[in-house]
Amino acid sequence: MFHAPLEDYRFILRHVAGFDRNGGPSAAVDAETLDAILTGAGQLCEGVLAPLNRAGDVHPARLEDGIVHAPPGFAEGYRMIADGGWIGISAPPGYGGMGLPLALSAVVQEMMAGACLSLQLLPVLARGAIEAIARHAGPDLRDLYLPRLISGEWTATMNLTEPQAGSDLGAIRCRAEPRSDGTHAITGEKIFITWGDHDLAGNIIHLVLARLPGAPAGAKGISLFLVPKHLPDADGNAAARNRVEAAGIERKLGIHGSPTCTMRYDGATGWLVGGENGGLAAMFTMMNNARLGVGGQGIGMAEAAYQQALAYARERVQGNHAGSTIIDHADVRRMILTMRAEIFAIRAIAVAASAAGDLAAAGDDGAAARVALLTPIVKAHGTDIATEVASAALQVHGGLGYIEDTGIAQLVRDARVLPIYEGTNGIQAMDLAGRKLADGGRAAFALLDEVEAAARQAVLSDLAAPLLQAVANLRGATRWMVGREDVQDRLAGAAPYLRGFARVLGAGCHLRAAEAAPGGAREHLARFFIAAILPEHEALLARARLGADVLFAHPVDEL
Amino acid sequence: MFHAPLEDYRFILRHVAGFDRNGGPSAAVDAETLDAILTGAGQLCEGVLAPLNRAGDVHPARLEDGIVHAPPGFAEGYRMIADGGWIGISAPPGYGGMGLPLALSAVVQEMMAGACLSLQLLPVLARGAIEAIARHAGPDLRDLYLPRLISGEWTATMNLTEPQAGSDLGAIRCRAEPRSDGTHAITGEKIFITWGDHDLAGNIIHLVLARLPGAPAGAKGISLFLVPKHLPDADGNAAARNRVEAAGIERKLGIHGSPTCTMRYDGATGWLVGGENGGLAAMFTMMNNARLGVGGQGIGMAEAAYQQALAYARERVQGNHAGSTIIDHADVRRMILTMRAEIFAIRAIAVAASAAGDLAAAGDDGAAARVALLTPIVKAHGTDIATEVASAALQVHGGLGYIEDTGIAQLVRDARVLPIYEGTNGIQAMDLAGRKLADGGRAAFALLDEVEAAARQAVLSDLAAPLLQAVANLRGATRWMVGREDVQDRLAGAAPYLRGFARVLGAGCHLRAAEAAPGGAREHLARFFIAAILPEHEALLARARLGADVLFAHPVDEL
Repeated sequence: MFHAPLEDYRFILRHVAGFDRNGGPSAAVDAETLDAILTGAGQLCEGVLAPLNRAGDVHPARLEDGIVHAPPGFAEGYRMIADGGWIGISAPPGYGGMGLPLALSAVVQEMMAGACLSLQLLPVLARGAIEAIARHAGPDLRDLYLPRLISGEWTATMNLTEPQAGSDLGAIRCRAEPRSDGTHAITGEKIFITWGDHDLAGNIIHLVLARLPGAPAGAKGISLFLVPKHLPDADGNAAARNRVEAAGIERKLGIHGSPTCTMRYDGATGWLVGGENGGLAAMFTMMNNARLGVGGQGIGMAEAAYQQALAYARERVQGNHAGSTIIDHADVRRMILTMRAEIFAIRAIAVAASAAGDLAAAGDDGAAARVALLTPIVKAHGTDIATEVASAALQVHGGLGYIEDTGIAQLVRDARVLPIYEGTNGIQAMDLAGRKLADGGRAAFALLDEVEAAARQAVLSDLAAPLLQAVANLRGATRWMVGREDVQDRLAGAAPYLRGFARVLGAGCHLRAAEAAPGGAREHLARFFIAAILPEHEALLARARLGADVLFAHPVDEL
Repeated sequence: MFHAPLEDYRFILRHVAGFDRNGGPSAAVDAETLDAILTGAGQLCEGVLAPLNRAGDVHPARLEDGIVHAPPGFAEGYRMIADGGWIGISAPPGYGGMGLPLALSAVVQEMMAGACLSLQLLPVLARGAIEAIARHAGPDLRDLYLPRLISGEWTATMNLTEPQAGSDLGAIRCRAEPRSDGTHAITGEKIFITWGDHDLAGNIIHLVLARLPGAPAGAKGISLFLVPKHLPDADGNAAARNRVEAAGIERKLGIHGSPTCTMRYDGATGWLVGGENGGLAAMFTMMNNARLGVGGQGIGMAEAAYQQALAYARERVQGNHAGSTIIDHADVRRMILTMRAEIFAIRAIAVAASAAGDLAAAGDDGAAARVALLTPIVKAHGTDIATEVASAALQVHGGLGYIEDTGIAQLVRDARVLPIYEGTNGIQAMDLAGRKLADGGRAAFALLDEVEAAARQAVLSDLAAPLLQAVANLRGATRWMVGREDVQDRLAGAAPYLRGFARVLGAGCHLRAAEAAPGGAREHLARFFIAAILPEHEALLARARLGADVLFAHPVDEL
């Protein structure tokens, strides 16, 4: 049922993200390797992961006698992911990783999310932990944990949230008491811990934010600890249980296959990762990749929903003409084409962001600023598009869409988590309009210069013209943001600014695709996006510049 | 928890819909009666219905041994609705109804939907059947069924959909064989029958679309039949079982409290309602009211979601300042204010539509054209806003929103049915851009004339100016629609045209509210809507005029 959209990935890598022209890490990947990776990942997604997706929904992960049991089939699926080397696709080769570029890893992760989001989350978490340990832990911890995480023998979690500390991690209360042997005793409760416990691997490595005694208040007093479920023995095998357990499991709107746990630490043994009080910094180094990854999850989910809607629209006979299917109805065609155009746009932006991440990792500062700028856009817009596309896909199904057995409702429910986790989309917008413009808009203007230059050189000048106008509008909105003294004014317009930004970049990607393959479907799609979707940017960017007064003038008591 | 927004209803009835100036049916309702109705309905919603809403979700209606069992508490809730006279609020007094104006009935139904949509559907269906029987059935059927439906002793269903006949009712296959005693034997299967079976009332009256022998093909050969679950005996009491049963019950995304049944008719006894082959016409006379009602359900659901988000945003402490709650965060404030402004706009449009319906019922042809024009806008936009507001309300809750126990996820799931049933929103848009402009745009232009005249007289001329421009844009788009020869061009732009239309009307209602209560919260809200939301209409109306080529140029095989 799920079809890995390899042709789109190949086209975008080559013609939009310049994967084979970028130099840097992607230069090391020859065409044959690229093809082998895409084909292999596609087979895994279509043949193994996609068939597990319904089971995860219908037979949710469950907590019994202190142990979380994964849905049927997930153990085999996880084993195939691990054995194929997919967990360490971009991990250091010295510890068993493949060391492949992020741009390639991004599309592999995107398609795995489209096939089975609940299970895809498990390797995603491992990748985050691998990155944190590789960058911030000492050699003993690295040597012990990295090979086992990369091979998939052990899995990992991120423990950030507490009941009073969600978007505001400065409010964390979980505490860490130093012991004489250099370890720490970790005590506290963490909530919303994805795959916090399960029966799929021999050990679970928790990365936990906690406070050392006497640490400064707020975000500056948080440290990061590695807390394994089973303490490793002298040979590095998982041995005695540590004092951590899953105290509860949430009943959620979606991603039922992935357990969301409340974790209780009761003097559990942990090891400091990174410096004292350096926990948030360590988390943030991972966060950009994680956020790009969530954006990719959104794109994969949107792809899955689009495919299901398209298949239904091609089959469903309805209307006055014998044999005509609903894809010939103008309004259904509008929905289908909108999905397709939206997915292409944000997918191209996301791959370009990861490609910049590869160059940044190779030391290119401009690319580092580029990926930092694009990250909140990919996360927020990719996940907004996921919810919009999933909802439209359900709508295409009519009454059948509302029936759970049809399967499209699951995608709507599953996708709805994406705008929330890994920093809500409101947080992403604040990040874009705040921190990511703190360079005076340099990274933003540099990107717009490129979009503009490409548009000026375009042969399809009638498509380029509205894009050039849109770039000018976005420059204006960016200048307004940068020049605004009151931060509330920027934050009040942050969400529409982000969406308007994504509209302009999406049109830039579509134009690039049309230029690379003129006269065919890609040009038609670009024409549709630029005619039907790009114009939204105007109202969005005008709204971005309204300032905070129009929001705060309304008395709270009269809401 | 749910708070009936009586003040908003009073304000809109009086200052936007002109309830007390309209003459016609509403003139018969004095201020005291109006207040008694609103207060009584509010108490029922807050005290009885809202507390049932979670139970309906957690303990879905279930089919056991051929009988559908309603969720716990629904029997008492239904009894309170019936005993209060709320089923017959706008039904003919001669049969026990209250005969109140539709504008008043509309707000009562809206608040009942906000309190508990699953249960609200039951009286809604009865009202539709009452209307159909009152208008189209002969005196014997009227005398037998109307009093029992109005009192709530019996309930009713609508049986339209079959597996191959959803939006396209012309494809119906269910058949009706005449018998010598004047009754008909009804045979066939119907799907998606809301409250098709249950244990809350002594009888269930099914209104069923079926074909007589030799009937013309398609929509012209469909007749309407009344098929009771229990055949009435000579005294009019429910007696022997008729040959109809609930063959299955759907597992749905939401409205779990309301059973959605597959109904099997196996030579069941039915009575013809209306003329032979007049079934679709009879259905359509009900459909306008039913569609307005669904729009109202959307508004009620949006209200419930908004209230929950607002309460959370006022309580949730998060961020750097001690004691500050997230309602002071600009992006949260943006979401909350957007919800509030959207709800007010579509609520005012909906009440105005129902008020026009009252005048139409009293014989005003212009008002009849007005309500016909507004119906698809209220249905589609009211339900789109419901899904958008519910989703934003979930988002305000952050991670907690994704947890089912929080309750907001239920509203997201429940509301998602609204853009689908009673004619998908795509069908509504086609209705607006097609049939409702078939008068050459006369009704549309007459409405725009009124909006424009009010704007020209407005004291708040800075608010009126952008509205006047928007009215001009909508006139242009309407002229384009009317002048287009190829119907595909109109249908291709129908959905954005409808939303753009709603934007302009919403701004008109907000301006009217600001003029009636200048200087306070209502003016602030109007300023926000006109500054932040109205500008969307431009891209929407431009998109409405793109034509069909941009959609159909893309080859289907390359989607």
